[in-house]
Amino acid sequence: MIEPPATDAYAAARRRFDALAKPTGALGRLEELAAWVAGCQGECPARPLDRVRAVILAGDHGVSLPSLSKPSVSAYPREVTPAMVRLLVAGRAAANVLARQHGVTLRVLDLGVDEDLADLPAAVSAYKIRRSSGSIETTDALTAEECERALTTGRAIAAEEIAAGAELLVLGDMGIGNTTPATALIAATFGVGAEEVVGRGTGVDDARLQHKTDVVTAALRRLGDRAADPFTRLASLGSADLAAGVGFLQAAATSRVPVLLDGIVSLAEAAVADDLTPGVTAWCRAGHRSTEPAQRLALDKLGLAAVLDLDLRLGEGTGALAAVPILRSAVLLLRDMALLADLSGG
Amino acid sequence: MIEPPATDAYAAARRRFDALAKPTGALGRLEELAAWVAGCQGECPARPLDRVRAVILAGDHGVSLPSLSKPSVSAYPREVTPAMVRLLVAGRAAANVLARQHGVTLRVLDLGVDEDLADLPAAVSAYKIRRSSGSIETTDALTAEECERALTTGRAIAAEEIAAGAELLVLGDMGIGNTTPATALIAATFGVGAEEVVGRGTGVDDARLQHKTDVVTAALRRLGDRAADPFTRLASLGSADLAAGVGFLQAAATSRVPVLLDGIVSLAEAAVADDLTPGVTAWCRAGHRSTEPAQRLALDKLGLAAVLDLDLRLGEGTGALAAVPILRSAVLLLRDMALLADLSGG
Repeated sequence: MIEPPATDAYAAARRRFDALAKPTGALGRLEELAAWVAGCQGECPARPLDRVRAVILAGDHGVSLPSLSKPSVSAYPREVTPAMVRLLVAGRAAANVLARQHGVTLRVLDLGVDEDLADLPAAVSAYKIRRSSGSIETTDALTAEECERALTTGRAIAAEEIAAGAELLVLGDMGIGNTTPATALIAATFGVGAEEVVGRGTGVDDARLQHKTDVVTAALRRLGDRAADPFTRLASLGSADLAAGVGFLQAAATSRVPVLLDGIVSLAEAAVADDLTPGVTAWCRAGHRSTEPAQRLALDKLGLAAVLDLDLRLGEGTGALAAVPILRSAVLLLRDMALLADLSGG
Repeated sequence: MIEPPATDAYAAARRRFDALAKPTGALGRLEELAAWVAGCQGECPARPLDRVRAVILAGDHGVSLPSLSKPSVSAYPREVTPAMVRLLVAGRAAANVLARQHGVTLRVLDLGVDEDLADLPAAVSAYKIRRSSGSIETTDALTAEECERALTTGRAIAAEEIAAGAELLVLGDMGIGNTTPATALIAATFGVGAEEVVGRGTGVDDARLQHKTDVVTAALRRLGDRAADPFTRLASLGSADLAAGVGFLQAAATSRVPVLLDGIVSLAEAAVADDLTPGVTAWCRAGHRSTEPAQRLALDKLGLAAVLDLDLRLGEGTGALAAVPILRSAVLLLRDMALLADLSGG
């Protein structure tokens, strides 16, 4: 069990909002967000979130490898994963645009891309666990050793970000096919059937949606009762990047650093992390509500209200990055507004 | 009829989003927002919204003046209006905090505060139409002459902001009791009964909510068939600040400058403005969805989807100001992301 954010600082922030020069509760959900940050920092008013750092964990997935007997789960060829990693390193992807806008430091890390990426700086693949992952409808995604190593690696990545001064972390993802293992993990964690939560990801057609549903159903059936154990669930249905994300969230919560989650992949990571080490979710808020049914289910089950609801479904942490200024607004309002007492004083 | 934003630039922006390095439509509603800005500017990609300017129109309302026979419609004494104007001038209100965060230039202008504000810079009250307004359940809010003058004044205020280089305008409000005339205007414009749309404003109790409903019902009954004429509706149910807001929106649309609306007051202004000069709404987007039922009705009727939905109910333009970085994100993504063609090129 991980210690929750400080309840005294949280309560002090709620009281301070009641004393600010505005009607009680008039800042709506911004008040809860700022109080959460105050609780995470153990300090009211909270310090401004100047140093925000984002990590995008990249990896490929066995389910996106088409064969003679079955298609890929994705509308996009898996070569897009390394191409997008290169674009992120070059600073020209959507996440880079948002990170620059908000002064967020962004790293993209290759945990399981099915290519060597030898042309990129060595730091990008320094934490690589393996190339791709097992196709979850027929085999475990990772061995237990790989899964353990990915968890440890994710914790190390978070520790680096925190050592670099992160006051808020953003967890993003990149990987063709990654909504399939993420959906399987969410379905297995919350005990729902594939047909209830499989979505179109980046935009698959009806035939591929059916195939994706079949893959998740087969994966859940293959896992069977072993789903009760979160580590087994993660190794069986996840991937190197997903397992690293789980470790990342564990370490952030243990180190008392708040995290803004993004879409379905980070919600799957939070769902498993909270099961492995209860209390992780209390250190997380959701940047946005995506179009993926499994992401929405996970938000509900984890009790997370999303900051934005703009029908985004891009990944790369974009929904969380877009929400960063809103979280900053909440903290600045808590800090900088006048008190009602100042008002009556003239 | 006001000319709409340029359809060619809008369509070019939609096409450009389809060609960016992401799945089709994956940026959700950000794509529509950026295309709207491109249409307003007549240019694709749109220019970044560097110069955003906000105006808060302040005024008092007859309905907030309690008497021996009736209470105020508000939980707050009307002395709060001038106190909040002073706080805004001093830079310590919620709107100031958000404006500073986002580099937005903010002016607060006294259109009808029931005090002289002689202690403040003369510019604050330079456009004052009158002190307070008639209590709308028994009398017209404004004479026809006052209403005409307030409309002209609002147009002049917008013209000043545009001359100062505004690429995006934010329209906010400040005034104890102002949700009552705003609700009456929305109810009269869309032909719904008071009980369907009266809300708790800054937070009135059940007894005052009933009184507020009675006031709006009486005002609508008094207006009767004259509701069909938007100018008469505005003079009868509005106020100096509301009429100036209507003029402000007319001038912005005529000058082809986009506006981010805020809560119930700016939605009432948009509803009347669009009736007076059809086409105004096409130059507006809604910063947020507030907790006021009349604001939500007006959003639906005007076909406006709100950027944020955070249960805000503060006024001062805060919901629109909080949404400014999201609109900027949309434009920056349209401008700065790589194309799919760049991706396949390596």
